[in-house]
Amino acid sequence: MTNANMIWPDRVTICEVGLRDGLQNEKKILHVEEKLQLLDAVVQSGIKIVEIGSFVHPKAVPQMADTEEVARRMKRVDGVEYRVLVPNLKGLERAHAVGLTKVKLTVSVSESHCINNFNQTPLEMIRGFIPCVEYAAKHNIKISGALSSAWGCAFEGKISVQQIEKIVNEYLQLGITELSLSDATGMANPRQIYEIGSHMMEKFPQVKWVLHLHNTRGMAIGNIVAGLQAGFTTFDGAFAGLGGCPYIPGASGNIATEDVIHMLHEMGIDTGVDLEKAMATARMTEAIVEHQGQSAVLRGGRCEDLTRKKAQHQNNK
Amino acid sequence: MTNANMIWPDRVTICEVGLRDGLQNEKKILHVEEKLQLLDAVVQSGIKIVEIGSFVHPKAVPQMADTEEVARRMKRVDGVEYRVLVPNLKGLERAHAVGLTKVKLTVSVSESHCINNFNQTPLEMIRGFIPCVEYAAKHNIKISGALSSAWGCAFEGKISVQQIEKIVNEYLQLGITELSLSDATGMANPRQIYEIGSHMMEKFPQVKWVLHLHNTRGMAIGNIVAGLQAGFTTFDGAFAGLGGCPYIPGASGNIATEDVIHMLHEMGIDTGVDLEKAMATARMTEAIVEHQGQSAVLRGGRCEDLTRKKAQHQNNK
Repeated sequence: MTNANMIWPDRVTICEVGLRDGLQNEKKILHVEEKLQLLDAVVQSGIKIVEIGSFVHPKAVPQMADTEEVARRMKRVDGVEYRVLVPNLKGLERAHAVGLTKVKLTVSVSESHCINNFNQTPLEMIRGFIPCVEYAAKHNIKISGALSSAWGCAFEGKISVQQIEKIVNEYLQLGITELSLSDATGMANPRQIYEIGSHMMEKFPQVKWVLHLHNTRGMAIGNIVAGLQAGFTTFDGAFAGLGGCPYIPGASGNIATEDVIHMLHEMGIDTGVDLEKAMATARMTEAIVEHQGQSAVLRGGRCEDLTRKKAQHQNNK
Repeated sequence: MTNANMIWPDRVTICEVGLRDGLQNEKKILHVEEKLQLLDAVVQSGIKIVEIGSFVHPKAVPQMADTEEVARRMKRVDGVEYRVLVPNLKGLERAHAVGLTKVKLTVSVSESHCINNFNQTPLEMIRGFIPCVEYAAKHNIKISGALSSAWGCAFEGKISVQQIEKIVNEYLQLGITELSLSDATGMANPRQIYEIGSHMMEKFPQVKWVLHLHNTRGMAIGNIVAGLQAGFTTFDGAFAGLGGCPYIPGASGNIATEDVIHMLHEMGIDTGVDLEKAMATARMTEAIVEHQGQSAVLRGGRCEDLTRKKAQHQNNK
């Protein structure tokens, strides 16, 4: 039956979202110094896109209350994109005030999710971004857009392709062409990622796509494999696999950045990231948050570690 | 760049190896009653191939010392294959003595691994199986063969395709045509699984292939996805993701049976297994071994559980 044809890109881009999506559900509120230390380690490892926090209301997400201070005090390395999540114009103004030039807006693709949480439809929410787009244009700030619940929703289950397309079209009308398809509840499966993903690539070739995966049900690494086949070459990840679904205590979080990098390197796909440094960042993360994350490579080690360990053992015999 | 073409079979066969590979490194030695309870749950869930234990030396693997008793006392359900691992003729005779009709022989594809552990080359080991083949033919016992370290070896790193082919040819000369490519160290990556797997399918169309994956470095579910593309339709798994690499304490074990089933069902691929019952088996396993395994679905729940939970929450508002 082998008429499948798997293809692999030469290079993949990794975005580190640990400082935002990874930390936002952590109980321990980090010191700014700890965040800066993590951010520095991320950038030192070679990652070029980092989501440093969000400008949501501090009462809603206390962990993000110091995002301004992080932005003010961080070293800014040339060639690195420092991005923040903003929910609205107020957030965008705060980002601009601390000199940030890249923000991410987000809307849930799910009607019920939007209406339940924000008392607005997805279309109303996205049209509410018009003042943001105008402000950003005036101040030379770049915007990317996220489509959350794109792969499934706790309220609605699966989301139709038509519904995703509708939201993509709205973003495009606002001139936002970098779009992330987000699976915060970990409901995506590899077949869906391939089928919907390749459809989106074909229908919207002008879009720079990002795939944002959580490993809640253990499917994330399979979704990366299917995502590569669909044509995705940019993936979010969080150090040590932090994060998680707010509805499911104890479940896995974001896909672990270092697990993705390890697998891609094993497959001969370049990421531009130093895996050892990425693993050191993940270890630092676990020390700072004071618990283990969900990293397979931190627990199991790299493939080459096993070979090396065995070789040493033989030499010592 | 989308000229990939992913294909999906309608149906996949799951072999439960938890009673052998899952348990063999567990500290707590299970009672026969506990094993029988697990075996019964596995069969009740709809799994048709179960590896119930091994006939290795009891001192080498104390957990397997009661495999004869398990075989003697188990309910034998029509249509279910009860398989044991045997290392040699003595093991095969023990299997026959308790009325088993299916055994698995195993050889490491790695020269260094074989020589270090058994003081024989893989070819010498496999030729040592000739008395087993003759005995099995006489007593109407079916044999399958495993190629361990096929995807990587702690001693040698990657194994060449030529080396794998050599061992496959030896098995075929013995008339053994059901072959499992085993990754007990979790070193396989999806690109390798696809490339070597589809090569093997093409070169040896007469073989019934099985893929045996461990999740040591978090790559196993990606390897299932790539394995499906290569044409594999039979996969081993262990309840609750038990097992693990003896060299790496704390690392993940076999890929969790229930995680594979959950993902395949989400993808519209039939397994013939009742997922709820498979999850119940995994929970029972964790209770019996007295620790958590490495199951994503037990922790995160099924996709549909999330939707249902949310709907109930809304109704109660």
